[in-house]
Amino acid sequence: MSEHFPGISKIQFEGSQSRNPLSFKHYDADEVVLGKTMSEHFRFSVCYWHTMMGLGKDMFGGDSIERGYLSSQDPMTRAHDTLDAAFEFFTKLESNRNLDAIVDRAAQKQAETGVKTLWGTACLFGHPRYSAGAATAPDPAVFAYAAAQVKKAMEVTHRLNGSGFVFWGGREGYDTLLNTDMKREADQLARFLHMAVDYKKEIGFSGQFFIEPKPQEPTKHQYDYDVQSGHAFLQEYGLTEHFQFNIEANHATLAGHTFQHELEYAGARGLLGSIDANRGDYLIGWDTDQFPTDIYDPTLAMLTVVRAGGLTKGGFNFDAKVRRQSFDLEDLFHAHIGGMDSFARGLKNVAKIIEDGRIDEVKDARNAGWSTDFGKQILAGDKSMADLESAALSGGEPKKISGRQELLENLLNEFI
Amino acid sequence: MSEHFPGISKIQFEGSQSRNPLSFKHYDADEVVLGKTMSEHFRFSVCYWHTMMGLGKDMFGGDSIERGYLSSQDPMTRAHDTLDAAFEFFTKLESNRNLDAIVDRAAQKQAETGVKTLWGTACLFGHPRYSAGAATAPDPAVFAYAAAQVKKAMEVTHRLNGSGFVFWGGREGYDTLLNTDMKREADQLARFLHMAVDYKKEIGFSGQFFIEPKPQEPTKHQYDYDVQSGHAFLQEYGLTEHFQFNIEANHATLAGHTFQHELEYAGARGLLGSIDANRGDYLIGWDTDQFPTDIYDPTLAMLTVVRAGGLTKGGFNFDAKVRRQSFDLEDLFHAHIGGMDSFARGLKNVAKIIEDGRIDEVKDARNAGWSTDFGKQILAGDKSMADLESAALSGGEPKKISGRQELLENLLNEFI
Amino acid sequence: MSEHFPGISKIQFEGSQSRNPLSFKHYDADEVVLGKTMSEHFRFSVCYWHTMMGLGKDMFGGDSIERGYLSSQDPMTRAHDTLDAAFEFFTKLESNRNLDAIVDRAAQKQAETGVKTLWGTACLFGHPRYSAGAATAPDPAVFAYAAAQVKKAMEVTHRLNGSGFVFWGGREGYDTLLNTDMKREADQLARFLHMAVDYKKEIGFSGQFFIEPKPQEPTKHQYDYDVQSGHAFLQEYGLTEHFQFNIEANHATLAGHTFQHELEYAGARGLLGSIDANRGDYLIGWDTDQFPTDIYDPTLAMLTVVRAGGLTKGGFNFDAKVRRQSFDLEDLFHAHIGGMDSFARGLKNVAKIIEDGRIDEVKDARNAGWSTDFGKQILAGDKSMADLESAALSGGEPKKISGRQELLENLLNEFI
Amino acid sequence: MSEHFPGISKIQFEGSQSRNPLSFKHYDADEVVLGKTMSEHFRFSVCYWHTMMGLGKDMFGGDSIERGYLSSQDPMTRAHDTLDAAFEFFTKLESNRNLDAIVDRAAQKQAETGVKTLWGTACLFGHPRYSAGAATAPDPAVFAYAAAQVKKAMEVTHRLNGSGFVFWGGREGYDTLLNTDMKREADQLARFLHMAVDYKKEIGFSGQFFIEPKPQEPTKHQYDYDVQSGHAFLQEYGLTEHFQFNIEANHATLAGHTFQHELEYAGARGLLGSIDANRGDYLIGWDTDQFPTDIYDPTLAMLTVVRAGGLTKGGFNFDAKVRRQSFDLEDLFHAHIGGMDSFARGLKNVAKIIEDGRIDEVKDARNAGWSTDFGKQILAGDKSMADLESAALSGGEPKKISGRQELLENLLNEFI
Repeated sequence: MSEHFPGISKIQFEGSQSRNPLSFKHYDADEVVLGKTMSEHFRFSVCYWHTMMGLGKDMFGGDSIERGYLSSQDPMTRAHDTLDAAFEFFTKLESNRNLDAIVDRAAQKQAETGVKTLWGTACLFGHPRYSAGAATAPDPAVFAYAAAQVKKAMEVTHRLNGSGFVFWGGREGYDTLLNTDMKREADQLARFLHMAVDYKKEIGFSGQFFIEPKPQEPTKHQYDYDVQSGHAFLQEYGLTEHFQFNIEANHATLAGHTFQHELEYAGARGLLGSIDANRGDYLIGWDTDQFPTDIYDPTLAMLTVVRAGGLTKGGFNFDAKVRRQSFDLEDLFHAHIGGMDSFARGLKNVAKIIEDGRIDEVKDARNAGWSTDFGKQILAGDKSMADLESAALSGGEPKKISGRQELLENLLNEFI
Repeated sequence: MSEHFPGISKIQFEGSQSRNPLSFKHYDADEVVLGKTMSEHFRFSVCYWHTMMGLGKDMFGGDSIERGYLSSQDPMTRAHDTLDAAFEFFTKLESNRNLDAIVDRAAQKQAETGVKTLWGTACLFGHPRYSAGAATAPDPAVFAYAAAQVKKAMEVTHRLNGSGFVFWGGREGYDTLLNTDMKREADQLARFLHMAVDYKKEIGFSGQFFIEPKPQEPTKHQYDYDVQSGHAFLQEYGLTEHFQFNIEANHATLAGHTFQHELEYAGARGLLGSIDANRGDYLIGWDTDQFPTDIYDPTLAMLTVVRAGGLTKGGFNFDAKVRRQSFDLEDLFHAHIGGMDSFARGLKNVAKIIEDGRIDEVKDARNAGWSTDFGKQILAGDKSMADLESAALSGGEPKKISGRQELLENLLNEFI
Repeated sequence: MSEHFPGISKIQFEGSQSRNPLSFKHYDADEVVLGKTMSEHFRFSVCYWHTMMGLGKDMFGGDSIERGYLSSQDPMTRAHDTLDAAFEFFTKLESNRNLDAIVDRAAQKQAETGVKTLWGTACLFGHPRYSAGAATAPDPAVFAYAAAQVKKAMEVTHRLNGSGFVFWGGREGYDTLLNTDMKREADQLARFLHMAVDYKKEIGFSGQFFIEPKPQEPTKHQYDYDVQSGHAFLQEYGLTEHFQFNIEANHATLAGHTFQHELEYAGARGLLGSIDANRGDYLIGWDTDQFPTDIYDPTLAMLTVVRAGGLTKGGFNFDAKVRRQSFDLEDLFHAHIGGMDSFARGLKNVAKIIEDGRIDEVKDARNAGWSTDFGKQILAGDKSMADLESAALSGGEPKKISGRQELLENLLNEFI
Repeated sequence: MSEHFPGISKIQFEGSQSRNPLSFKHYDADEVVLGKTMSEHFRFSVCYWHTMMGLGKDMFGGDSIERGYLSSQDPMTRAHDTLDAAFEFFTKLESNRNLDAIVDRAAQKQAETGVKTLWGTACLFGHPRYSAGAATAPDPAVFAYAAAQVKKAMEVTHRLNGSGFVFWGGREGYDTLLNTDMKREADQLARFLHMAVDYKKEIGFSGQFFIEPKPQEPTKHQYDYDVQSGHAFLQEYGLTEHFQFNIEANHATLAGHTFQHELEYAGARGLLGSIDANRGDYLIGWDTDQFPTDIYDPTLAMLTVVRAGGLTKGGFNFDAKVRRQSFDLEDLFHAHIGGMDSFARGLKNVAKIIEDGRIDEVKDARNAGWSTDFGKQILAGDKSMADLESAALSGGEPKKISGRQELLENLLNEFI
């Protein structure tokens, strides 16, 4: 088997002083941080679709990138070459993979290389039949088609020992309310997911189900708009115990939230499942799916993830693509190295922040009242409005407590 | 008692051909549309705060507008004059009012004029003590203060026979997650609202409670971000039966949704309570609180409101202010007339759309499959994934059904 | 020659009471409004690329729409069939065309049908070689390639008697400043356009050159961000006399401006050349290219266009596409009919507004001071700061003049 | 004279390992970086208005912050105390000041302390008379009033040896085009600025004039939308030689640009005058005026500023305010320390980036073609379209050159 990425050896950790761009400067798979190896913290995963098959296309231009492994005229050869190249890439990066490939051969390559499947999914948005949604389509025949497809994809994921299954509803939404019954479509979506839960039990698949919120694009308005909207849906239809969230940074910001906000909301409710670790551009109104390189984001994200106890079945997936002008094979490596190093720096920053303790001290001082008996009694439901009126009248004007935002931002900068 | 709006008589309905700018061209309080008078449909309400006390101030400049009724040196005289002016204004417009005034005199003026209180509220965002929130403050003493204030405001609203009570959490959110425990603050907010529910029962107040979503401003991130987020919160804390939503058009668009989207979501779940009928500017990132004048919005809003059965205890409140350059008393009338006429046109458009039937026909044709036995069985939970796989295999590729968005938009234009 | 749109006859004007969706309700080509026929006002033009070749593709899914004229296996037959279908479509709508086709046959079809070419262009954004721009590419070889392509396209447009030539710089911008020399790229773009001006003279092409501003998409930041930015560029490089703007509504709103703002700026400087009459969605951050159906926009746009003296060499081009779910041939007609009728309504509204005169009266009253001698002398440069200081001291506090925004919006609604 | 900031001594540079929050960790006024001291690079300036007089007010609540120096009942005492406190603050931070104070005493304090005036300005947006603009008001009497006010402010700035004068046109724009003649208002603004230029010569004031772009807020649309728009205006009215730009980061992002983009555009044209070094929040649609703490922004900004040769007459002004919840005096110091340290880090990063050279190498390699003879000849105007057509035909398909965005972002991270 020929090498698909010639001249690029396995990417090694060389430390922050290395000037070799094809090395990790911060990600050291076996380094123990906060009690776990980096590899356990992250379970980094490469997106087969973007990384192997993404060729720089956008709405205003076709593929801009050429790949040797896609050059064969024969489709099966092309598929096999791509899979080989992919496993070579995973191995060179020491990462896992998402499912979107030829099953038998993939199972065999998994066995050979030790690369694992992080999660599987079914593409319910690309084909014209899903133009108006899959589970929320106006036609039950489309719903049936989608159900058949998910059934199959679950079976495959089960066989490849995937640790999860992601539902991204890119077309589950509407383009205009003039032709849409929003409530019935929510009922449809809930029914679809309940069916999947039933089938999961039936086949004994123990992976975790994830839904992945996104506010819009391609659809004008997607039903899983953000994490809290998704939580409303899961509660309304009795699905909370069966699903967690797969949270993508770029989807968060498109919905008007920071990445950390979405993680924090999910984490506090035991619903933080997995992470799509790409980023967007705050000045751009669509999904740019860039590799994460701004150190603040991974730092704040990891602060929340670590405090929430880490991910259990999920991982950090680079649902990201190189830029249209990044024509070369080595750009793929720069991209993933940059993303992995950024999260590694974030994690190490968090370890220092926690050890240092000053940020927590400032935060705790501000919130101290809720740890007093008075505070606890209120939260426990032991105080009525009349009780509090008395307390307010006798206590007088509350003392003002500075939010200390500027100090906290300065302290954070000590760790960046 | 002298007249505060001299030269302006009671605004009369004069029909769409009138060239008198101080007349209603579409709003005719007693005209029956779809089985109810316009007055019953809308229960229009003037916002005491904006309309009587708003003087054009913004962050870059102080008051720009002068009002005669605010000219007295004596605060009590000023308050009484303002209240007199307000009731003169309500009466000249035939509208209701929101509560923010001197209670005794207000009760007396209500009795004299027949003007009613639509809803009351408590201002838990203006005072410095609430800078970090009221229910979600980091200090339980602030929580207690806020509880005392809401207790009092509920008593007053009860006495004035207000038909509802609105909780707008303008400061219930965070400025930075670095100093915030988001989950505990959600617990606090829930506790606060449960206390209000308990107290409501205790005093026998039968008005409806509303929460009013807004994504941000003044706070960076508000917990009642939008209707669906609010629904998540109400479900999580067992509050769904006690609250409905007061939906403001400008808050919807700031959260990335159309006004109709928010109404539709709430309406389908029996949570559509009341409406703040101002509008924003799509190109501006803050709350402009303009009077509604784009006929499309009231038309689409009323389409949803009418189909949801109308408002029961709520009404249409103009939480809107004249522009900073609208210095004159007559601008106040132009503003309210424009808003009321726009909604009247919207309602009449809806009556025509429903009578005409073509828009519904196109929508129903698109969604017909869900009224077939096959569709109904799926929704009823009578089909498994395996059943649907069989159906998909035997049914083949589903027929594509056009969404007909362009036709629907053309049809809508026939009614504008 | 078989019919490509069977069952659809030439679209006729039937008036606003018609219930035939395949008729014009407002657009009557020969109706004289404000001294010109509608056909002369608009010179409506169909976008060959979107209308004939657009098949519903987006970033998350391939083509969703099938067209009979694209079904042949033979590329030349396919091209000819498409051209035939296009001319059938133009003829059924009575519209012009943009250039993107097989030249000889197109010239012949033009001669046969009387359909004209509104303008030509060269696609300098689709091919991978233009990933980093054409005129602003980092490699002069790409610049040369683009020059060759524009040279050819100008020759073809000249031969087809196109009345203009549009430069849309979708890739003329940058993805990151880290690899970009912004000023040198501006120099490149200017050089490119000067070359085109020179070549235009050389071949005697008398059509008008247009640049088409857009802030971003596909590129992160495009150099022709909006009209005023484009004006800065044209002035800096001495190109003002050779170019006008082709203004697209959706590009205006993506840049944070209203459509009317862009028209007004260009119109006041004699730079209003042509119009792309599609619209966007204010809640969506990319170019949705929808057909215009909101009557306010065409009304306000035509108010500015009419006052600026109308378009001379340009026209109203539907650079718009049917929605991904609009699978049927008739949706293409609904789309264009809706767009043409909307602009026809807008124009007729403007005629009424001008005849009525009240909106202008209110505006003129507000601005009356600048028609006094004092105002004119200031503008003429006949007053110094010291003169004005004296005037201010003697004149005292200026009288406040209401902006009358609410009244003006109400008056506008009388014409919608 | 009593101390206004008791317990806070002069802020000292203590290095990055210091745990004293009231010390500079990176800003060392006398440290030489890239050939100049930090103090010369930055000329940091404190905004009198925000820092001394800003008390946490926003649109939804009054002042939240109390300051001892504002506690006197007597207005003159209050003004003097504030000025004393301000100079104590400037001295403790070693910064300059902007003008907005009592002139005589200010001149005396300047002489005593060595603190300088960076620039002066006139507030032409706060007073109701300027609701519709100052220079662009619909009433020439307002124009005259504004001219008188600018005349006076220029005289004062001249007397205090201010090195510049800023024109921020917060109300120079429109709220609705329905009542506005945009072109005449541009003429008015140009006339106003020409008058100021004339008067500057008359009094011999040698300070630099700056205009400060902002897209909106408080006005719906401001005429100085962004730097390039402002450049169009300056060129159109022959003002380019008399004005430079004062660029504010938050205004850049509100206009859809990065801070660096605005600096780069101005710098390449010799128009980069001064900097307002506050930041905004990408998820918030209004001017939050926060202190800069994200290290990426100052790094990229300083990269451009250094390459453009630095600021000559301008400086780095903190037009920023502490958060509404930052109640304490020490928060003022945290805020300014954080801002100054962030820019100091940025500058030191830039020195390292330049010394290292790798980022420039990658950029230069990408753009190498424009340094060849072929590239230079094109830019010099020595090639025609026909020449380039020949070159393209003979040269064949250009080789694709990777943009290397991922690598460049990784390299940048080595310096953060």
